[in-house]
Amino acid sequence: MDNTNQELETLRNKVRSVTTEIMRAAQERLELARKIGEIKSKFGIDIRDEKVEEEVRLRVMLLAEEIGMSSEFALQLLNLLLAESEQVQREKTEQKVVEKQTHLAIFSKAKHLEALGKKIIHMEVGEPDYSPPARVGTALAESFPMKLYHYTDTAGIAKLRDAIAAKEGGGISRDRVIVTPGGRFAVFAAITSLLRAGQELIVIEPAWPAYKECADFVGARTKILRTTLEDKWAPDTKRLEGLINSTTKMIVLNYPNNPTGKVLDKQTIEKIVSIAKDHGLYLLSDEVYADYVFGEFSSVRKHDYAKTIIVGSFSKRYAMTGFRVGYAIASKEVISKMTRVQAVAITSVAEPMQYAALAALDVDPSENIELMKRRVGLVYDKLKKMSLRCVEPDGAMYAYPELPKRAEDMALVERLLEKGVAIAPGSGFGDSYRRFVRISACQPEKILEKGLEVMASVMREQM
Amino acid sequence: MDNTNQELETLRNKVRSVTTEIMRAAQERLELARKIGEIKSKFGIDIRDEKVEEEVRLRVMLLAEEIGMSSEFALQLLNLLLAESEQVQREKTEQKVVEKQTHLAIFSKAKHLEALGKKIIHMEVGEPDYSPPARVGTALAESFPMKLYHYTDTAGIAKLRDAIAAKEGGGISRDRVIVTPGGRFAVFAAITSLLRAGQELIVIEPAWPAYKECADFVGARTKILRTTLEDKWAPDTKRLEGLINSTTKMIVLNYPNNPTGKVLDKQTIEKIVSIAKDHGLYLLSDEVYADYVFGEFSSVRKHDYAKTIIVGSFSKRYAMTGFRVGYAIASKEVISKMTRVQAVAITSVAEPMQYAALAALDVDPSENIELMKRRVGLVYDKLKKMSLRCVEPDGAMYAYPELPKRAEDMALVERLLEKGVAIAPGSGFGDSYRRFVRISACQPEKILEKGLEVMASVMREQM
Repeated sequence: MDNTNQELETLRNKVRSVTTEIMRAAQERLELARKIGEIKSKFGIDIRDEKVEEEVRLRVMLLAEEIGMSSEFALQLLNLLLAESEQVQREKTEQKVVEKQTHLAIFSKAKHLEALGKKIIHMEVGEPDYSPPARVGTALAESFPMKLYHYTDTAGIAKLRDAIAAKEGGGISRDRVIVTPGGRFAVFAAITSLLRAGQELIVIEPAWPAYKECADFVGARTKILRTTLEDKWAPDTKRLEGLINSTTKMIVLNYPNNPTGKVLDKQTIEKIVSIAKDHGLYLLSDEVYADYVFGEFSSVRKHDYAKTIIVGSFSKRYAMTGFRVGYAIASKEVISKMTRVQAVAITSVAEPMQYAALAALDVDPSENIELMKRRVGLVYDKLKKMSLRCVEPDGAMYAYPELPKRAEDMALVERLLEKGVAIAPGSGFGDSYRRFVRISACQPEKILEKGLEVMASVMREQM
Repeated sequence: MDNTNQELETLRNKVRSVTTEIMRAAQERLELARKIGEIKSKFGIDIRDEKVEEEVRLRVMLLAEEIGMSSEFALQLLNLLLAESEQVQREKTEQKVVEKQTHLAIFSKAKHLEALGKKIIHMEVGEPDYSPPARVGTALAESFPMKLYHYTDTAGIAKLRDAIAAKEGGGISRDRVIVTPGGRFAVFAAITSLLRAGQELIVIEPAWPAYKECADFVGARTKILRTTLEDKWAPDTKRLEGLINSTTKMIVLNYPNNPTGKVLDKQTIEKIVSIAKDHGLYLLSDEVYADYVFGEFSSVRKHDYAKTIIVGSFSKRYAMTGFRVGYAIASKEVISKMTRVQAVAITSVAEPMQYAALAALDVDPSENIELMKRRVGLVYDKLKKMSLRCVEPDGAMYAYPELPKRAEDMALVERLLEKGVAIAPGSGFGDSYRRFVRISACQPEKILEKGLEVMASVMREQM
């Protein structure tokens, strides 16, 4: 045993000196990064250079293979070094990240103003003003005498999962469904259970900020595919494929899109599904606006790709935002991983809310859809009359117009909030959209008209 | 600009070679760890050696200071290396971690058996069988006609936060309260917002598994302070202090304790608060059983330490498990960080559930407490009669007896489940408690008696 201790001690001494070597080299690397940052700053070059990063990543993967290191560990190590380099460069150049103002931040401010007695027209948040189906109220009232207020299966009560599975069709079973506290948690559970620190997902912007927030939460990196008003918000699938590298794990889709209202044509979806298949990527398709479609729409689920996760919700379809019930449909394996996240974070969804959702499920939402279509049409027409460029929405509940040259979203948003009208800044959906705003059509037409009049008059005086 | 490009390219080449150097050294370190693992395996030495780790950590901190590296980055780098070394050693020695069976896993199995028509006596889960206050049902029924089903402030509706603040006393304001979907999410939000990968928290075992699960979720490390039946489950505060190192960020307390029913005396709490203060640690005190106290109890909050987070819940006090409403009380800064996690994961708690909780808040729960005290007393007496060693619970809703020598928790749990009685394995609350089980007293006395009779007869035949 003494010999063993000596042997252990010798090995440990070697570990000590190698650790020192690693640390010194890492520090040298940071110093080099700092110098590169200084040069970049002097010449106004962007700090993050995806091409250089990709090349580094490729070299590291090759080297890992050569020296027998696990590629997973190699990438973790590299990502740690890259993240710190970026950090060091930002400090030097003071390219500090400004806290983004999302639609929820504006909603919060608006709520605060309301609490102080100010009247606010809410066109910042995607919360329908109409009521959920009456039978939801009945189910809610009945849940208490029926003692439906206990812990449920983590993935949700069997009846609701069965009903969702039946509604989706395609003969899927209960174990391919999880009921979550809102579509947001379905997104959260999917991203945090399927991605680790250092891995990547691709988001098509402009986008609901939640995808990137969830990725940030686990230290995963978000690659952005930008779309433009000029291209009618259609993603360039060649460029999409170009963003994929060895650490990419997921593509996120959200059509009908928040904030643009875009719906993809069938060919584009097919192309994206085939890209995901070719690279073995998860395809997270957030379809919470699937009911609000004014033309054609085909769910990604119909393309029958095993690594697809479809997110749905009762919030938009039945105006049940405050019930916080959403769901996901995926393979058994993925549902089981997502269920694990749900077990750790919340145990299960409130049982009365699950029965409320069950009561709603068979109700035909087409009246809501017709109403929303008229409202979105009204908003679109009014924006056109203000001479703002805007793509006519194919679905969802929003319009996403471009502001005049030299206008800036937050200036308008804040001025409007003072005037009692809340709208969402375009930059909340992507850094490159500071000249856009999102107008939510979740109010009666009279109120929307009033809000848009205020917006028009503020723009006349300001821009 | 050409010169600049050349300069950048030269620096990038240097980065490339340093990166290669780091990777090769890291691989060398892993090889050394593998060899150490082989020796340890041969002589049955534990893979994780806290003392060696602590020494390494200290050396790395000193070196970081010497070479001008941020200590945060240095520790992240080290923790990545340590985690991979441990991984590599485990592979070698095949000390694979066995998937733990927690009380929730047994609950899930029991639910499954019930769905197949089997009768189950539930003594595995902490879910009271009595009803919530009647006014909760009224509030629930009224929420729908009152249109209380919208997104709320992320941290919860003002009325409920105010009421919780008022109930807590000490003149705290609304912005020190967050309403969460169950106490579990309060724990999740506290741990995931305050700890990063590589940082540590201390948990006193036996413990509810959620603390470690939440730490695992963000890659934080859990240090365990074990307590024993012989010491009546009292933590050794000297050993507690000994577990603290430069990466420690939080101590977790849970008294009245799940699973032992232990309540700490005032001096021990004072000592732990002063240790937390001395080291600037967060003190997460999960007090969801605070009402179920059969003697004296003093909340950690009364010790007025700024970095304290108190977790409370409506689940146990009012038998409202399925409503999923809990809360946390902490400093404004911590509440704001926790609110950020809530915004990312769930937006806000279901509004009808918040109003249901508000309706319950003023109801006196003392009848529930008396009932639970009698039941826990009954369970304790019966266990004694079975000649099992058990510390008499000071509070909560459980008893945590030790099984006879050579007995093993999962064997008993599975045999009992076959016989229609669900209890929780002791090892779900800590690896070193395979000779314990947790009996939940959340059933009428007759049913508890029946369940315990089955347990006694199975033990007679089996052990």
